[in-house]
Amino acid sequence: MAEEREEEFTSLEKIGEFGLIKRLTQNFPLNQSSSIKGIGDDAAILEFLSGRVLVSTDMLVEGVHFDLSYMPPQHLGYKAVVVNLSDIYAMNGRPTQITVNLAISNRFGIEYLDKIYEGIRKACQVYEVDLVGGDTTSSYSGLTISITAIGEVEEGLEVLRSGAKEKDLVVVSGDLGGAYMGLQILEREKRVFKENPDIQPELGGNEYVLERQLKPEARKDIPELLHKLGVKPTAMIDISDGLSSEALHLCESSQLGIQLYEEKIPIDPTVYKLAEEFKLNATTVALNGGEDYELLFTIPLEDHDKIKGNPHLSVIGHMLSDSKEKNLVTRDGKYIPLSAQGWNSFE
Amino acid sequence: MAEEREEEFTSLEKIGEFGLIKRLTQNFPLNQSSSIKGIGDDAAILEFLSGRVLVSTDMLVEGVHFDLSYMPPQHLGYKAVVVNLSDIYAMNGRPTQITVNLAISNRFGIEYLDKIYEGIRKACQVYEVDLVGGDTTSSYSGLTISITAIGEVEEGLEVLRSGAKEKDLVVVSGDLGGAYMGLQILEREKRVFKENPDIQPELGGNEYVLERQLKPEARKDIPELLHKLGVKPTAMIDISDGLSSEALHLCESSQLGIQLYEEKIPIDPTVYKLAEEFKLNATTVALNGGEDYELLFTIPLEDHDKIKGNPHLSVIGHMLSDSKEKNLVTRDGKYIPLSAQGWNSFE
Repeated sequence: MAEEREEEFTSLEKIGEFGLIKRLTQNFPLNQSSSIKGIGDDAAILEFLSGRVLVSTDMLVEGVHFDLSYMPPQHLGYKAVVVNLSDIYAMNGRPTQITVNLAISNRFGIEYLDKIYEGIRKACQVYEVDLVGGDTTSSYSGLTISITAIGEVEEGLEVLRSGAKEKDLVVVSGDLGGAYMGLQILEREKRVFKENPDIQPELGGNEYVLERQLKPEARKDIPELLHKLGVKPTAMIDISDGLSSEALHLCESSQLGIQLYEEKIPIDPTVYKLAEEFKLNATTVALNGGEDYELLFTIPLEDHDKIKGNPHLSVIGHMLSDSKEKNLVTRDGKYIPLSAQGWNSFE
Repeated sequence: MAEEREEEFTSLEKIGEFGLIKRLTQNFPLNQSSSIKGIGDDAAILEFLSGRVLVSTDMLVEGVHFDLSYMPPQHLGYKAVVVNLSDIYAMNGRPTQITVNLAISNRFGIEYLDKIYEGIRKACQVYEVDLVGGDTTSSYSGLTISITAIGEVEEGLEVLRSGAKEKDLVVVSGDLGGAYMGLQILEREKRVFKENPDIQPELGGNEYVLERQLKPEARKDIPELLHKLGVKPTAMIDISDGLSSEALHLCESSQLGIQLYEEKIPIDPTVYKLAEEFKLNATTVALNGGEDYELLFTIPLEDHDKIKGNPHLSVIGHMLSDSKEKNLVTRDGKYIPLSAQGWNSFE
């Protein structure tokens, strides 16, 4: 899995903390009109002339959230930004700035950090956000990335988890389970490689799920699409820990129940094929896999026609008045209680 | 040093990630009018009706920035907040919100985390800021805290590092070197304790420097004081890495030189006494010790009368037009080039 190659290695001690921050953040121009002053002072200065400011933050820890033996540093940087931006889209907002804190041990060289920042820069370009601050420090072991995303939303357009109403339709963007299946393949190939380093990894044909795991995208297009369609979700959340767990969050915040239909859950054919190969149930993978960064939201029943047939959106159920009823209706008509078996870093 | 006592220990696995976040963040009311929605959704919602938004972020890593063998968890939580707020004051701003990300290994119990959050809560009360978001996750080893501070400043009142002018006076708040001497005492007592656990630590009489190290305060009062005195600093920075390093930052950002006078540097008598005991030069300690979280700023010469004699402020030098001249004039009239020997986590 790990390629044999000569790599440059310049130790972090050599360049020092200030030199390092300067080097890493040199090619990050400010493009947002709300970014008045970025990196280089005690704090960034922002100005949001109209509307509200959104703030979300997440921490990714080596060995817990990512495995560097198969996660290329560019992808790690990209993904760390994307998972934070996803939270801003889940508020129906538009991300505008990020700050990045990074703790790294001396086993990493500057060139490695350059690559992480290459990924961060790429994400900033794709999602049009400005890097406006951050801290780079040493750690005794491992790599930790903490990102804060800032965004804006016009007053009244923000969408909370708590706004769902009885009978609202439950809608999900894209498809689910891909990121988890990508992880299974990577873990399998890692095991194979450990046992026999001469065997080449078998990754071919699985590009879709590998990309879902290694280089996920946030659904920037969905708030825009809904706006165009004239639909304002009543509640919204992004799927980081699995459909089941996020659906329960919507229920708890909105004090409602939910009914989802197994046959409606969008699952890519590759995921079905791989689930079979790994002897997993594809629905379980979609429910509990997590890391898909799709948006889960509710809309009033009367907006159904506006989204019907849209290839990006699937209606998968509806909200119930009884907050004790939180079920999945299986293909053979059984009612199974949803449970939060989603990913939990402490388990 | 470590007290012998029965402590409760509830493992983090037992409560799970969501239960943990709920428990830790339950007693954090929102008091700022700019906090529309705090913890509990994908992002916090803030609203700054007038003025500009300040964002600053810092990461503290166990073994690099703090040593849990002598840092009580309440103080760690308090200090982690304070060092971030200090950056907002250094912009002449007023902090309003924080987000807290925490990565912890399973060797810590819930009760320990409760204590860290007790310190965070205390700091939120003292500095009147709202906790509006964060992430708590496991780590393979050690404790890492990443905080983002958000604040506001009226347009035109922000103070950058880059605004100093030739002949401006260089002013520092409070006194310097205390935090570093506190650290020396703690490190010494740790060594003594390791060699002979029966010996009681000798901390008496050194409360001032110990508090400077373990429970520093940010100079919230200084921007207020300056406002009252009718003085607007031309440039400002907080002293986290030592006077010398921060003075050089001001020079670089303002493209000027600086002349500081050894005899003017405010140093507490305890620091002199302890420096002698530890065979250190008190001026060197003040220049390079760091972690004092005092404010270093420049004011126009004509404002001298407004601050003269104020017990919180010391004029320690002035800015020079020649950006190559960055010197300390010693008591015996020698010119010594300032160098950034301040703290660097990679060394």
